[in-house]
Amino acid sequence: MEIEKINVDSYPSSEKFYVEGKLHPIRVGMRLVRLTPTVKIVNGEKIMTDNDPVVIYDTSGVYTDPNVTVDINKGIPRLRENWIKDRSDLEQLPSITSEYGRMREADKSLDSIRFSHRYAPRRAKEGCEITQMALAKKGIITPEMEYVAIRENAKADEMGIDSHITPEFVRDEVAAGRAVIPANINHPEAEPMIIGKGFLVKLNTNIGNSALSSGIKEEINKAVWSCYWGGDTLMDLSTGDNIHETREWIIRNCPVPMGTVPVYQALEKVNGKVEDLNWEIYRDTLIEQAEQGVDYFTIHAGALKAHADMIGERLTGIVSRGGSIMTSWAKIHNEENFLYTHFDEICEILAKYDVAVSLGDGLRPGSIHDANDRSQFLELDVLGELTEIAWKHNVQVLIEGPGHVPMHKIKENMDRQVEKCHEAPFYTLGPLTTDIAPGYDHITSAIGAAQIAWMGTAMICYVTPKEHLALPNLEDVRNGVITYKIAAHAADLAKGHPGAQLRDNALSKARFEFRWKDQFNLSLDPDRAKQYYVESHKGDDHFCTMCGPNFCAMRISSKLADECGK
Amino acid sequence: MEIEKINVDSYPSSEKFYVEGKLHPIRVGMRLVRLTPTVKIVNGEKIMTDNDPVVIYDTSGVYTDPNVTVDINKGIPRLRENWIKDRSDLEQLPSITSEYGRMREADKSLDSIRFSHRYAPRRAKEGCEITQMALAKKGIITPEMEYVAIRENAKADEMGIDSHITPEFVRDEVAAGRAVIPANINHPEAEPMIIGKGFLVKLNTNIGNSALSSGIKEEINKAVWSCYWGGDTLMDLSTGDNIHETREWIIRNCPVPMGTVPVYQALEKVNGKVEDLNWEIYRDTLIEQAEQGVDYFTIHAGALKAHADMIGERLTGIVSRGGSIMTSWAKIHNEENFLYTHFDEICEILAKYDVAVSLGDGLRPGSIHDANDRSQFLELDVLGELTEIAWKHNVQVLIEGPGHVPMHKIKENMDRQVEKCHEAPFYTLGPLTTDIAPGYDHITSAIGAAQIAWMGTAMICYVTPKEHLALPNLEDVRNGVITYKIAAHAADLAKGHPGAQLRDNALSKARFEFRWKDQFNLSLDPDRAKQYYVESHKGDDHFCTMCGPNFCAMRISSKLADECGK
Repeated sequence: MEIEKINVDSYPSSEKFYVEGKLHPIRVGMRLVRLTPTVKIVNGEKIMTDNDPVVIYDTSGVYTDPNVTVDINKGIPRLRENWIKDRSDLEQLPSITSEYGRMREADKSLDSIRFSHRYAPRRAKEGCEITQMALAKKGIITPEMEYVAIRENAKADEMGIDSHITPEFVRDEVAAGRAVIPANINHPEAEPMIIGKGFLVKLNTNIGNSALSSGIKEEINKAVWSCYWGGDTLMDLSTGDNIHETREWIIRNCPVPMGTVPVYQALEKVNGKVEDLNWEIYRDTLIEQAEQGVDYFTIHAGALKAHADMIGERLTGIVSRGGSIMTSWAKIHNEENFLYTHFDEICEILAKYDVAVSLGDGLRPGSIHDANDRSQFLELDVLGELTEIAWKHNVQVLIEGPGHVPMHKIKENMDRQVEKCHEAPFYTLGPLTTDIAPGYDHITSAIGAAQIAWMGTAMICYVTPKEHLALPNLEDVRNGVITYKIAAHAADLAKGHPGAQLRDNALSKARFEFRWKDQFNLSLDPDRAKQYYVESHKGDDHFCTMCGPNFCAMRISSKLADECGK
Repeated sequence: MEIEKINVDSYPSSEKFYVEGKLHPIRVGMRLVRLTPTVKIVNGEKIMTDNDPVVIYDTSGVYTDPNVTVDINKGIPRLRENWIKDRSDLEQLPSITSEYGRMREADKSLDSIRFSHRYAPRRAKEGCEITQMALAKKGIITPEMEYVAIRENAKADEMGIDSHITPEFVRDEVAAGRAVIPANINHPEAEPMIIGKGFLVKLNTNIGNSALSSGIKEEINKAVWSCYWGGDTLMDLSTGDNIHETREWIIRNCPVPMGTVPVYQALEKVNGKVEDLNWEIYRDTLIEQAEQGVDYFTIHAGALKAHADMIGERLTGIVSRGGSIMTSWAKIHNEENFLYTHFDEICEILAKYDVAVSLGDGLRPGSIHDANDRSQFLELDVLGELTEIAWKHNVQVLIEGPGHVPMHKIKENMDRQVEKCHEAPFYTLGPLTTDIAPGYDHITSAIGAAQIAWMGTAMICYVTPKEHLALPNLEDVRNGVITYKIAAHAADLAKGHPGAQLRDNALSKARFEFRWKDQFNLSLDPDRAKQYYVESHKGDDHFCTMCGPNFCAMRISSKLADECGK
């Protein structure tokens, strides 16, 4: 497959470097931004002072490593392969075990769209508990745990910043269920990352085609693009054709953990007929996807039949796709949601591959009117029960949250989630703080996301400007990711994450000293910043068109500081 | 002057209507959005149910009244002329009284750019206290007060919503200094509005040219454009050529109160040489602008000489233009800031025209590093002193606030401002919650603005995507205004403003019922919402490309609700 090369020139003066592990033979990729020196004229003499480079947490994987040539047709290098291949608790299967997966594999008509470079899946050996949580509980610091500890610190320690984030801390948080490292043993391409309130706030991006749009090539582009701009995890929410094949392409080329909502594919397998869904098809879908390497599954096991009866109280009913499917199924069959009744079996499957479960909020409010209502919070209680079940199986757990919530009702969401779900990491969509701005819902939701992340939400799911209206294109993905990087970073600052402010300080110093290029290069989107500046710039660098020369406060203030002998 | 007509077709199904006063012969313009009926098929029969129209607070003035033809060369109708002309406490002057104004008037070379339709200015008669605050303290409900009471309610009472906002409440809030009605007697074109924490959160927009850009025509366009999208007040921050003439054009065509920073023009009058500034030039500038009709002046009277000595502690010095000018002046002359030493005289002038004072925060932090520091809060103490002086003169007061502040330091800003400034309305720029996103600072700041507005800030000053980089163009103004409408409305919802949620409810109901046009028409930016939808839309209206037909939660949920007999 031909795929246009992603533009990796948007971060000038940046370079990839690696920090080596002390406990394990690992290398953690980071981005270093080199700065120009500060120049002052003192008594007619030019004095240059160096500025320390700034280290930035990097989600772009090998796509920004000039020493690696990526061939989409072969997939990116399998970073964790060596950590996994010698594990005695794992076995390599002769072939994939899901019925559907075998059927697709045997279908010659799919050859043209198939990712050709196949790997035999791995699985836990019978009786072995292999998840990061299981190992953490045993006191083991895995390579993944050391990796994320190094990654979170981004060398802040070398800048003299105290950090609580050690490999031991990571292990303890994972063992307690307060943090999750999504790391399916069949997705060794992904760089380990951690989701938990003691760590940097993470952001998830959603991609995926629908029956009406978008092909494989576009989806791979979006995936790589979202990682390039800063997405920490990626959900493939495809509901259109060739979901199985599309997913394989994305996983093999994806440097971040990938999640899915398996019921979407299960529903496609029964031609979109909710009534024809059943546990067997769903179960086979879980295995199919776990063996491809999906790192976390959104499972709407908390949306119960009784909840469906309450939606008459709502203005906007059920707005979660998974929630609407499962409650409809339950009503049609007059039976309980089969994801709830089979939850133990689900966990047994997930535990074999170390797939984390992201408990879906099928009854999240879809409008300000419905925020914090009875059905939403009753479902949250059920998610708390399910969390305990999953943990018994050592399956790592995320809890999904709303949705549309006005600011004064956000805190109750966070507080209840912590209480009912025993501190499992919260993973929220926004929340959107008003309904009245379709076309700008990246902003209505970033306002809520920044607040709930500050309160302790571990991961925020991005919303693009197209939310409620259409599927995002590449430019929408970029806007969504940058907007959510802002929300996440604002929360990291407010939480006092070790070293988070170093980048703000370096950028502001550059701004004050009219080092424009450094200001751009340190920003979340250097291209955009530079473009706005250049479009209207004329000549002298010691002011911009915003104020002109006489009214540049920084210019006047800088002169004043010099005179006051700063 | 030829000026392209503003596009007033962005709000389909909207119409202007007027609500009459009960105490005064006034008419308050509002926007009504008509909705289509809800259609349900029950037993094969089409059942239509009407949806109530939604009333929206409208800042666009006569520009959206089809019965008014605006001629920019004549200015818009003088709404308050009749309220003012018979007042016995005012006198009409034979001509303008500022020296500079007269000089400009006599300069024939300016004829080609001059607004030709001149009005003789009004002023308080000797010994008369004429400001809204003075009248409120006497127990008088002015037409302006009744106007804003009607406007704030937007007919929510007719929807059965209890409201605390009565003309009496308005009067009491103005008398107590907790709210401000900026209403220069020489700007009768402006529709009265109120700024105070008991009212809808307002947003200010900044326009203005710099020495490097933008002419009169462009600035009028930006002014009208910002009102059209929802700006409540407008500051003309011009620092380039022909400030006097540009301002006249804008004021005569501006349906919202307009503010300025008089020191900018004063500095231009001395060719940008800070050392040449003096009280006499500044004083003449105040009179010049007051007689043109400027409704509020930003005055940096709290940035003292002693504060300038502390900026060495900062990363980014002084980032307020006015603050940097006044502290530089004080250091150069080794004298106290003359705005501080002449503050009583300033208030005497302002009181004669009912110009409100917006006490500038010359020492606002320009970076996360400098937030909530010593010099910022020392200046705030001084602003508190000045507030009491202004109130003695019955001059209405706003207090300007930061700037760059991380989320965990926002509340201290609000709490201190309330305490030190005796509940005078707070008017903040953002705050920006991180420094690392130039090009997206409308978003970094909307996150902070929504929070501080919820806490009680009465007006938020918009930030456009070009902040720190360049002057905004029309598209940037639109993005900045919509982003700040979102922040303001999110805060109104969180504060429980009477009726604020009606629009959210109506839009969400339209969304759930697939009444796409109603959803667009009720949104802050119907054009944008529609554009995104149409670009990718194909056929059936009962889902969009985001999810496709089988995965539309609203479609499934709506079916479920029907079946459950909702």
